[in-house]
Amino acid sequence: MKKLVFITAGDPLGIGPEITVKALRSRRVQAVCRPVVLGDTASLLKAGWTDNLGQLLPIDTPAVLKGLPRPTAEGGQASFKAVQTGIKLALQTGSPLVTAPISKQSWAMAKIPFTGHTEVLRAQTGADGLMMFASGSLRCALVTEHFAVADLSRLLTKNRVQKAAVHFIKALQRLGIKKPRIALCALNPHASDNGQFGTEENKVLLPVVKNLKHRGFLIQGPLPTDAAWLAHAHREYDGLLCMYHDQALAPLKLAAKEPIVHLTAGLPFVRTSPTHGTAFDIAGKNKADPSSMESAILFAVKKS
Amino acid sequence: MKKLVFITAGDPLGIGPEITVKALRSRRVQAVCRPVVLGDTASLLKAGWTDNLGQLLPIDTPAVLKGLPRPTAEGGQASFKAVQTGIKLALQTGSPLVTAPISKQSWAMAKIPFTGHTEVLRAQTGADGLMMFASGSLRCALVTEHFAVADLSRLLTKNRVQKAAVHFIKALQRLGIKKPRIALCALNPHASDNGQFGTEENKVLLPVVKNLKHRGFLIQGPLPTDAAWLAHAHREYDGLLCMYHDQALAPLKLAAKEPIVHLTAGLPFVRTSPTHGTAFDIAGKNKADPSSMESAILFAVKKS
Repeated sequence: MKKLVFITAGDPLGIGPEITVKALRSRRVQAVCRPVVLGDTASLLKAGWTDNLGQLLPIDTPAVLKGLPRPTAEGGQASFKAVQTGIKLALQTGSPLVTAPISKQSWAMAKIPFTGHTEVLRAQTGADGLMMFASGSLRCALVTEHFAVADLSRLLTKNRVQKAAVHFIKALQRLGIKKPRIALCALNPHASDNGQFGTEENKVLLPVVKNLKHRGFLIQGPLPTDAAWLAHAHREYDGLLCMYHDQALAPLKLAAKEPIVHLTAGLPFVRTSPTHGTAFDIAGKNKADPSSMESAILFAVKKS
Repeated sequence: MKKLVFITAGDPLGIGPEITVKALRSRRVQAVCRPVVLGDTASLLKAGWTDNLGQLLPIDTPAVLKGLPRPTAEGGQASFKAVQTGIKLALQTGSPLVTAPISKQSWAMAKIPFTGHTEVLRAQTGADGLMMFASGSLRCALVTEHFAVADLSRLLTKNRVQKAAVHFIKALQRLGIKKPRIALCALNPHASDNGQFGTEENKVLLPVVKNLKHRGFLIQGPLPTDAAWLAHAHREYDGLLCMYHDQALAPLKLAAKEPIVHLTAGLPFVRTSPTHGTAFDIAGKNKADPSSMESAILFAVKKS
């Protein structure tokens, strides 16, 4: 029997409904899963929804489609409700959850007390979610996510880095890599050249690596960011643990040869999403590329 | 008449002498320049130096070659003296200077009061040197270089960013781009999402961009790092101004399809270098790849 997968259609005014409909028209997707879509009926119908694509659980926003694509409190409220319901269903069934893009601004306008998907997932599941990205043999995880660079030094504690490293290794194992080889990216340039510019390598990252090596994990680093990414691109590691957002995303997007899937590791179910945003500028114009969404669905089904 | 070019051979125990000799054996190099090499005679002879390759100005270190490739005070002293002399000659003649890798550790052991080439270049020429990298149509410059990430917020002042941007634009013009289009990379993830995580975009980077736009420069940003690099790889900009070391080097090394040349812009002469280090681990084994050194020489001659 084909696997159940819950899909939230994202902000009704963004490209979420369009990429959901387009991705579900893919034969490869329909061949492997039974999709249940949570979203605004009107926006999905406008994007070409037909009932042969899957089951629709309507979370409607009567007023929102009258305006231009933009952040709105209504869109925020509806997309948040869909995410909440999607998480509840995934928790109940253990089936994977795929989330189309929400607008952080719409959520703020609707006074949603979370900045994005990851925070709701953590709150509702009670689990530490680890932000992770995969594209073919490239895989990376973030120790810190949406924070100012000025706060990084304070945030990078031994405890935080070690927890993320262990989560990451376990997540790679669940992806089918029995004995994952990971490397830690350094925070500072040249991995601080032995403390010449920055203390975090010697005080935080090296002790974590030593400790985890001692416990039998295949872990290297901290390596200078450029060296780590070049080595990863040459498959010397199964994954890179990155200390901050741009250390992961910029190199990954340049090196990726396949669509990038965003996943949250460490939850009781598999959760993936495409790596782009709501793209209000092209919403409603039938211009959105569904390949990242399609990859997110296929990855979620395959790995759950 | 072929152009004069001064070449310092770097740390005598590193791969500098080897890549210098190998690069000077290139017909393309010999076709365009008259090389003058400043370095340790014994290490250059060991690497295969012959007098048909160019003129040798010996800066000798009697004792150093007896040991294994490693950082030494003697190597630091000799390579520093070569760099000092090279800068003097370049200043006197206006001819380009190409520098093979020195060891920062050797310099520290020799109590040289500079951390690397760029600092000596600045001190000896009295000019602001801007660290810049080029590989084909990819070009980027650094506002800050070898600093701890924890210090970035303090270092990124409007004055510093604006000076670097103007230097960068002028340097691109000297490379033959009449009206360079540049973009600033943001410091924080998602360019801080309008101040949600980090203040530097709104307080420092946006005002600089506005000011320079007003003065007629083609400048955009601050853009999220990943978006900036993807746009640059698609040739939407002639160069990216990066706020910190790894924001430039990691994406550049992944995206580069041609050898990367390191250059210091804003000096009275052209100065380039290969982008790797002394590589003590492979020194003396005839394993070093001279392509980055060869590109550095060709670039220096072509652009001076």
